[in-house]
Amino acid sequence: MRLVILGGVAAGTKAASRARRLDSELEITVYQEEPEPSISECGLPYLLSGVVGDREDLIARTPEKFADKAIEVLVRHRVEGLDVTRKKLSVRDLRTDEAFGDTYDRLIVATGARADLPPLPGAQLEGVFKLRFLTDTDEIGRYIEERSPRRATIVGGGYIGLEVAENLCRLGMEVSLIEGEDRVALAYGPEVSENVEAELEANGVGVYTGEKVAEFTGEGHIGSVRFGGKELETDLVIVGVGISPNVELAAEAGVEIGATGAIRVDRHMKTSIPDVWAAGDCVQTTNLVSGRLAWVPLGDTANQMGRVAGTNAATGEETLEFPGILGTGIFKVFDLGVGKTGLSEKEAEEAGFEVVSAGLWAYDRAVYYPGAQKGFLKLIADGATGRLLGAEAAGSGADKLTDVCAAALWGRLSYPDLVNIDLAYAPPYGPALSPVIQAATILSGKFDRARKGIRASE
Amino acid sequence: MRLVILGGVAAGTKAASRARRLDSELEITVYQEEPEPSISECGLPYLLSGVVGDREDLIARTPEKFADKAIEVLVRHRVEGLDVTRKKLSVRDLRTDEAFGDTYDRLIVATGARADLPPLPGAQLEGVFKLRFLTDTDEIGRYIEERSPRRATIVGGGYIGLEVAENLCRLGMEVSLIEGEDRVALAYGPEVSENVEAELEANGVGVYTGEKVAEFTGEGHIGSVRFGGKELETDLVIVGVGISPNVELAAEAGVEIGATGAIRVDRHMKTSIPDVWAAGDCVQTTNLVSGRLAWVPLGDTANQMGRVAGTNAATGEETLEFPGILGTGIFKVFDLGVGKTGLSEKEAEEAGFEVVSAGLWAYDRAVYYPGAQKGFLKLIADGATGRLLGAEAAGSGADKLTDVCAAALWGRLSYPDLVNIDLAYAPPYGPALSPVIQAATILSGKFDRARKGIRASE
Repeated sequence: MRLVILGGVAAGTKAASRARRLDSELEITVYQEEPEPSISECGLPYLLSGVVGDREDLIARTPEKFADKAIEVLVRHRVEGLDVTRKKLSVRDLRTDEAFGDTYDRLIVATGARADLPPLPGAQLEGVFKLRFLTDTDEIGRYIEERSPRRATIVGGGYIGLEVAENLCRLGMEVSLIEGEDRVALAYGPEVSENVEAELEANGVGVYTGEKVAEFTGEGHIGSVRFGGKELETDLVIVGVGISPNVELAAEAGVEIGATGAIRVDRHMKTSIPDVWAAGDCVQTTNLVSGRLAWVPLGDTANQMGRVAGTNAATGEETLEFPGILGTGIFKVFDLGVGKTGLSEKEAEEAGFEVVSAGLWAYDRAVYYPGAQKGFLKLIADGATGRLLGAEAAGSGADKLTDVCAAALWGRLSYPDLVNIDLAYAPPYGPALSPVIQAATILSGKFDRARKGIRASE
Repeated sequence: MRLVILGGVAAGTKAASRARRLDSELEITVYQEEPEPSISECGLPYLLSGVVGDREDLIARTPEKFADKAIEVLVRHRVEGLDVTRKKLSVRDLRTDEAFGDTYDRLIVATGARADLPPLPGAQLEGVFKLRFLTDTDEIGRYIEERSPRRATIVGGGYIGLEVAENLCRLGMEVSLIEGEDRVALAYGPEVSENVEAELEANGVGVYTGEKVAEFTGEGHIGSVRFGGKELETDLVIVGVGISPNVELAAEAGVEIGATGAIRVDRHMKTSIPDVWAAGDCVQTTNLVSGRLAWVPLGDTANQMGRVAGTNAATGEETLEFPGILGTGIFKVFDLGVGKTGLSEKEAEEAGFEVVSAGLWAYDRAVYYPGAQKGFLKLIADGATGRLLGAEAAGSGADKLTDVCAAALWGRLSYPDLVNIDLAYAPPYGPALSPVIQAATILSGKFDRARKGIRASE
């Protein structure tokens, strides 16, 4: 029995390892276009600045390590054709440019996603980069070494743009960030965006919101960015405006693509084609809060999906399920941590909920305990039923508060449930009543009496 | 309508504030024996060492502040008699030793708990202290100032003993800790106890487990502690061997006491007597994991109970409920954070569950991200149903992991649910798969195939 996996980053390598664990007889081959498999892509912004010192640190496992487990990982190999009827692949070895054929009994598509580069004049100039793969970091690193850019411009105020802004500042560059919408960190509510912008500005980043880049100009290499009548001189541009799932190969083979543009899979990570599973950044899933289809490509989810796809592909049965996601995410920008789980207020409204929310700034330990710092938490709930729909956190303790709320969402708790939740208290670790409890109590105070149907802990 | 509250620490003052908020007409009087109300008792060990600089920092609100909200707080007043038939109290003003009578329409008993001093020879010697009230800290502080003790002995290896050990070390004392059982931190499993003992020893604390104190000796003041044939010279002893609920007044008045020895209340914090509610360290509740009665006196729970009792006493209705607890707790000893929620393995076995568990040490951020440190997490579950029963965490991130597991318990999740839980990942905040997910995955690997009834995410 031969299992072939297309793509060797998070989902693909997790699936391979899991399949091997369950079945020592299985033949397993992973094809990977990039030169290294098993890359921690989330670490790339930190490699850029040297916060992560060694590029090898981001390679969780080399092809040799996979070979020790009898998993063949073929890097610099592009799968160019897929015939799901005959279970055949056409593959090109990018090092030699030779093409060859392969076959599979079971297939996992884990082709990931790619960064988008908008079709703007000058986007092909030297010095205009995306940041998605380790090879991108290599190229940016070489460019920085050769040209010693002093001024850098980030296009896009999402996770990648914000993380890159911090890391280019660490290199001593004068950094500007341009965001087309009227605020950065759009997945969050306006309070969080304001705090992120303040953090950027406090660290010397020039923030331009509501500005769409018109053109990159320069002679040979990048010299300036034009937007809204302005011209910003710059020696380096990194574009982080979005990513797209790599679905073309699968789509051409007849694998059904979902409404989000990513591959449609069921809860067992099975595609529409027999013996073909898919996992990671190339598939869509369900947001368990809204019940809607969602494409939220993230490394942790890719790992979890890879485990399910690898297990089911190895057993050939519906052994494991991947239920869906909450849309949980977190990033750090300078000293500010920012996390969310579930739906933002805007997303909740779009999903048809009658949204109520309560936000507060609270200390991360007893107010009298040394080092107490404030963090922000907002709970978002359905006013009709009390059900928790989402949470956003920023500042000290954002990671803890986000994860606690994610667990509450996973258990489908309501805000009245959270008023009496038994969380851990000691002076070094929080206020006597967690911000989660405080925010839930505010919601209860606001809405309980108006809506007699909801009572604490019922 | 007159509401009288017996006790003015966490539950009593919370109940008073909450009642005032709901009913501006209510007459509210709080009787409090200690000289200050609204004390953050959990902060006392840190006041001892000066980590908390000012004793006023631990007084959340003075009687004057309460008076601003038309809440009368009478400190240094002991309620000596309670007649629940006639709704009368007899009160003694401890400053003048004058006795007087009072009446109530509604009563909240929030008399708290007291530290136990074992009936050992020499326990009354000067220099042998308990640590429960702000006045205890005052006395210990005066003794330290007068006698400059060099050697201190802690009796009891629970939360208080461990926190006090750290704080006496900060004062430069040579500290020993004696625990009667064979390990410290008995509420936890042996892995945690080992780590706590190692942390104590690494910081110079002499740890004596399995040793019962026989006698305190000294001339006038404490000079040594005798146990198991040993004699330890010491200039100061702090005993933290347990606490007892203050229920005598209520019990004598006919209020029903529960099997745990604390006051029995229903989910509305009502006692067995009409118009008498109770809250805080003097009441028992239900452990929601085991379904058993529990007496776990902690400040955060006292606040939550106080809110419910204050609300229901103000409205005279069953407006709010307090559902019970998980037994969540956390403490810090030197640089080690230690938390738990739900049942320990021992408690789970005693409650009749077929216990399975998985423990692991995992990094608190991506392994390549600077500052990555390991923390311990153990998940405890019911092998028959997969239901999560408890968790213990130690080391970096213990507070986050404990609270995430507490939220999972609050939502009655099973370990297979946790395999795919969508927690927040970015390199500065955790490994790609949270230790919670890793431990749940280990449990799934161990037990899923053995028990076909359980599947991930079902």
